[in-house]
Amino acid sequence: MSESKLEQKVKEIGEQGLLQKLHRFCPPDIIGDDAAVIQTLPEQSLIVTTDVLVEGVHFSDRTTSPEDAGWRAAAANLSDLAAMGATPLGITVGLAVNGDTPVSWVEKLYQGMNHCLQIYHTPIVGGDVVRSPINTISITAFGQANPNCILRRGNAQPGYAIVVTGIHGASKAGLELLLNPEIGKTLSDTEKNTLIKAHQRPKPRFDILPILSEILSSQSPIPIAGMDSSDGLADAILQICNFSKVGAKIERSQLPTPPAFLNWLSLQQSIEWVLYGGEDFELVLCLPPEIAESLVEKLGEESAIIGKITKEKTVQLIDSTGNYPDENLSLTQGFQHF
Amino acid sequence: MSESKLEQKVKEIGEQGLLQKLHRFCPPDIIGDDAAVIQTLPEQSLIVTTDVLVEGVHFSDRTTSPEDAGWRAAAANLSDLAAMGATPLGITVGLAVNGDTPVSWVEKLYQGMNHCLQIYHTPIVGGDVVRSPINTISITAFGQANPNCILRRGNAQPGYAIVVTGIHGASKAGLELLLNPEIGKTLSDTEKNTLIKAHQRPKPRFDILPILSEILSSQSPIPIAGMDSSDGLADAILQICNFSKVGAKIERSQLPTPPAFLNWLSLQQSIEWVLYGGEDFELVLCLPPEIAESLVEKLGEESAIIGKITKEKTVQLIDSTGNYPDENLSLTQGFQHF
Repeated sequence: MSESKLEQKVKEIGEQGLLQKLHRFCPPDIIGDDAAVIQTLPEQSLIVTTDVLVEGVHFSDRTTSPEDAGWRAAAANLSDLAAMGATPLGITVGLAVNGDTPVSWVEKLYQGMNHCLQIYHTPIVGGDVVRSPINTISITAFGQANPNCILRRGNAQPGYAIVVTGIHGASKAGLELLLNPEIGKTLSDTEKNTLIKAHQRPKPRFDILPILSEILSSQSPIPIAGMDSSDGLADAILQICNFSKVGAKIERSQLPTPPAFLNWLSLQQSIEWVLYGGEDFELVLCLPPEIAESLVEKLGEESAIIGKITKEKTVQLIDSTGNYPDENLSLTQGFQHF
Repeated sequence: MSESKLEQKVKEIGEQGLLQKLHRFCPPDIIGDDAAVIQTLPEQSLIVTTDVLVEGVHFSDRTTSPEDAGWRAAAANLSDLAAMGATPLGITVGLAVNGDTPVSWVEKLYQGMNHCLQIYHTPIVGGDVVRSPINTISITAFGQANPNCILRRGNAQPGYAIVVTGIHGASKAGLELLLNPEIGKTLSDTEKNTLIKAHQRPKPRFDILPILSEILSSQSPIPIAGMDSSDGLADAILQICNFSKVGAKIERSQLPTPPAFLNWLSLQQSIEWVLYGGEDFELVLCLPPEIAESLVEKLGEESAIIGKITKEKTVQLIDSTGNYPDENLSLTQGFQHF
């Protein structure tokens, strides 16, 4: 950081100085009061979600620019709304910041958040800025959803098809390429950039909601299970099965995998990143097979029906071609410990 | 901490283990999905506020038990809702926690939050638990308010009376007594406990809202300015004047002061804690004089009309008895810097 001598630090402008600089990222009419005022639609339910990201634990300068950290923080929260079938209304940002942090770092963080939020017409409606030894970003996102169309983990039923809305493993591969560039030496620049971009700029899948809503509009109300795959695809399937008290059979060959994995990774490494890599922010949906087929047709080729919900409560990875033995999926591989 | 050897630590049970222990503080129907679902009343606006508290900056074991830290964190957020004229719907809690923290500390923190929240029938509807070198609590509270009755900083008008709903300076005095018990040697135990309690267990003033609403129900809609005094009484008055583009004259003798201050503190020390001490979580309201009088009559003797809003934009502390010269209030004394 050659510019560090000239760089203004947070402690030099204080909490109020920093707040003033951040005001430009908020709609002007919401600044100043103890809380933000938001209009909701009368027939909708309020949907609320919170995520906390800690520097050195969830993001670091080594792999993530402040713009990307901001984008990812916003995207992760919006993805939780999409996973409930909700459209976003706004977010609040609680920032705990070390006084030695450059002011420009904080501004870039908010720029990154705003770039992501603007795509989904979502304002930063409020927040808090405090000092702390460790930079920590805490976002609460809220949205609204038709109470009859909320996607819930507990809604899966035996016979339902399991849909994923896009490829998995790309974000993990992108992170590994950032940490160890040498592992990508056989990849083309395009392949590398696609994977790194998947890690740095994930997109919450709000685009699914109107498509799903259109398919469902011709039907009587049907409970649909949904979750995002932020903690890994295997985790999402296991959570849905656990909450719905069902099991699943997942067809190995149907898992949408980044094309770059084919000649690059061992099959074992590939399936591990696809199932346990995490942070792809796709949706995992469980719904009746005929609706699943219409949905996948409209979503295009990166989406897929990857298996089906079963009455037996085990979650199995199967291979219809008979090349691999059946495996039970387990949560332990995808878990984060203190 | 003689029990520290036996004490289970957060890192020993992991994120999922801790989450499971914390589930008992949430309503059972909201656990498990990516986000919480909340019903709002159709004719109400959504009100949202966020606060971040960092261990060692905003609370410390030296002056604050985990129960008190939890209570204060919840109370501070609820107070922001009360200051907008909103009734609470729920809060989310983002907890970043060091792995060496005793599990019981986290449980006591949530117990303290819940004790405060239960008084106002407010559930913890969701949140996040992550690891961090520094314990950090980030709360987002949301409530609802009649859009015509929202209290805003920018609503003060010349001629309005300024009401405070209770005494100021008690929380600061309580904190100082915890930090330096010897300064309280001339105080009775009751006096000391009252001041310490004011610091440890502040109460958001939701009780004001129905009283205000009843007084206003016989009137045509009137814009009322309001703010809580969490950052100090002077700060609240100055913020309201700044946002309303008005000034104020505050009558020194009318400031509701803890009775214990009289024979304990110098007049200078007393007025400093009353104006700049902060964290009393009372409301500062600006409204037409006749409504102010009805309000203070109903609220009882700890509330007071402390001055009036003026067209001239200075905020003056005046003394009608002529014992003290007029003083201009300034924000700089009440400010927190990085």
